[in-house]
Parts: sequence; C-alpha cells; structure tokens
Amino acid sequence: MSPFKPDIPHPSVRRLSVYLRQLESLRVQDVRTVSSQTLAASLGLTGAQVRKDLAYLGSLGHPGIGYPTQELVSAIRRALGIDREWLAALAGVGNLARALLRYRGFPQQGFRIVALFDTDPAKIGQQVEGLTIHGVGHIPEVIAATGAELGVLTVPVEGAQAVADMLVAAGIRGVLNFAPTVLRLPASVSLVSVDLAVQLEQLAFLVQMASHD
Amino acid sequence: MSPFKPDIPHPSVRRLSVYLRQLESLRVQDVRTVSSQTLAASLGLTGAQVRKDLAYLGSLGHPGIGYPTQELVSAIRRALGIDREWLAALAGVGNLARALLRYRGFPQQGFRIVALFDTDPAKIGQQVEGLTIHGVGHIPEVIAATGAELGVLTVPVEGAQAVADMLVAAGIRGVLNFAPTVLRLPASVSLVSVDLAVQLEQLAFLVQMASHD
Repeated sequence: MSPFKPDIPHPSVRRLSVYLRQLESLRVQDVRTVSSQTLAASLGLTGAQVRKDLAYLGSLGHPGIGYPTQELVSAIRRALGIDREWLAALAGVGNLARALLRYRGFPQQGFRIVALFDTDPAKIGQQVEGLTIHGVGHIPEVIAATGAELGVLTVPVEGAQAVADMLVAAGIRGVLNFAPTVLRLPASVSLVSVDLAVQLEQLAFLVQMASHD
Repeated sequence: MSPFKPDIPHPSVRRLSVYLRQLESLRVQDVRTVSSQTLAASLGLTGAQVRKDLAYLGSLGHPGIGYPTQELVSAIRRALGIDREWLAALAGVGNLARALLRYRGFPQQGFRIVALFDTDPAKIGQQVEGLTIHGVGHIPEVIAATGAELGVLTVPVEGAQAVADMLVAAGIRGVLNFAPTVLRLPASVSLVSVDLAVQLEQLAFLVQMASHD
C-alpha cells in the first residue's frame, strides 16, 4: 500500500518541494506552527493554493492554529518519497558535476552520489570529493555494487543517450538529465530533464512580458 | 505593440522552449517541414497538445503539410523574446558558474554572459573564460558599462538576497537564481529559480510512483 495519495498533480508536487524548503528553514528558526497564509505569503502564492496542495497529504492542519511545522515536513518528505536515502550515480565529471558533488542541498534532502563515471581516459581513476571516477564500461558492476537507483547525467549531448542506455541497462530507475537533448528511455524509467537554456528562455520571456505591461 | 499574444500559459511557454530545441536539431538535419504528430511523438506528447501550444504563435501550419521548420523556429524565438541577444551578469564564480560559462546552449540561444562578480578577494581580478571577476562593490558601474539586463545568481544561500538586491539596484530586469532559497524581488523584476534538489525530489517522486504501479 502506498502511504500517499498517488494522484498528486505535477505542479503540486513541485510546490510541495518548495514548501518543504521553506518549512525546513522555519524549523531551524524553531517556528513550531505555520499557517497556510504565512507559507503562501513567503512564497508569493495564495493561502487557498497552499491549503489545496497540502490537502493531498491528508488531514494535518488545525483551523485557526495552522500546521505543526515538524509534522508537515515529515508528511511532505513521505509524500515525495524522500523520507529515506536515495543513492545516485553521476556520469560526466565536468564543472557541473563538481558543482553538484559539492551542492549541500543534495545530502540535506537525502540524495547521496555514490558513483562517478566518465569516458575521458585522463579522468578515469581520478578521485573527486572522495569518489573514484570509473570508465563507463564499468557501469554494470559499479551500479550493482553501490546500489545506486538514480542516475545524474552531466555528459555532453553527443554521449547522453548512450550513457543513459548503459545506466538503464544496469538497473537505474530514474534519470536526472542535464544534457540539452531529448532522451528516449523505457517507460519504466523516470526522467526529469533540466535544460539550463530553457530556464534562461523562461526568464527572458517573463522580462519581455513585464516590459510590455 | 507586442508581436505575440501575451496570454501564453506558463506550461505552454516551457513547451515552446522544448519544441524550439527539437526544431533546431531538425533544421540542422535539413528537415524543411514538420507535422505536429512528428514533433509530439519525438517528445512524448500528443499532437493535439502541440497544435494547441503552437496556435498561440498565430496561423503557421498547413493541414496535411505541417509547419515550415524555419518559420516555426523564428516564430517561437519571437514569442519567447529570444529573437535578439540578451546580456547577462553572473554573480558567484564557483563550479556551477564555470559550467554555465562553458555551456554552449546559452550563446546558441542568444544569451551572453558579459560580467562576473564575486565576494572572494582571492577570485576578484582573475579571468575566467575571457571575463574579469569584479568585486560586488563594482556591480553598479559594471552593469551600466556592459548593459547586462539579466542576472545569474550562483552564490551560496547566505549571500543570495544581498547580491540580488545589488543587481536589482543596478538595473537588472530578471534574475535566474540557482541558490536554494526564496528571493524577495520587486514586482518589476522577473525571477526564475532553479533549485537542483527540487529537480532530484521530483525524480524521486516519479520513481516512487512508478514502483507503486
């Protein structure tokens, strides 16, 4: 049995992540309860939107009192599937990979990068942040040995599909893709793509819209 | 007068970026026309969805023939506001910044990083990818001299709001924020935030959902 309602819409899932970030910073400040209005205001949303999203987690809040911060954090982490550790393998050890390896948000949210791969003979065998870079030919045994379930793809476009295929063949269940290309994966493997130019394009669009107001 | 319909919904704007990426690769392969079905299939969408999104661009396609690739590329670039060059300033020159500076997708889509800022005295004065790193105290005159309109924030959480405020005061009209924190900006300044842990959380959620199917 799934511990959460499996029909949370995608935009709500994204907002749950954002609420979680905000709630964790409130928890650090020892804020014990939070109202939907406070949470909404701090994120530029409406209270109704926040209440609707949080209703997917079941009955949690108390009218007039708000949500208990710690319970809400736990409920969101459970709903998102991050109430446990996720092990990830990363392929393509360039600058972006090094940034991700040092990114504190990953371990804070329960994501641990446990394996590194590259195709560059000059990089294979090197250590980065305590991990050895393996050749992509060793993907099957390294994935099996580490138990990595997620793959982070920071390879150039040219090699992205081939490396993704190797990770999938080795049993990876989800891919976070930073290569600006469309990957074809089996339906059983989840995919989230982060195209950094798309993000800048969204920004340019918003700026252009604002200037026409 | 705005050259586009200003009421394109956000998810459509995001998909227009994705279509653009796909169309540009088709253009390189000298594919002159493309049907909504072909475009949809290559991206795992429905033809109806693609036609609906592209209808925001005005009348472009021909039933039974499809969309002229080059015209569609131009129309999307115009709608997104990237039929011109956008100059950007980047603050926080760490690994992520270096990855972004080498990222080919930015210049390809018309984004040019023209100024670098950091607070670290050891970095100030250094050259990265042909650009000098300036101290944040010089933000006003460097932004004015370069004409940068967008700011890319790759600073640690602690400094994010202060640096964002300095960029805004210097006239920046939009911020692409990679710091995993919620920024408060004036309504006149556009903001797109990329929280990399949120992306991994979305992936974990999808993988968890798939395993419950």
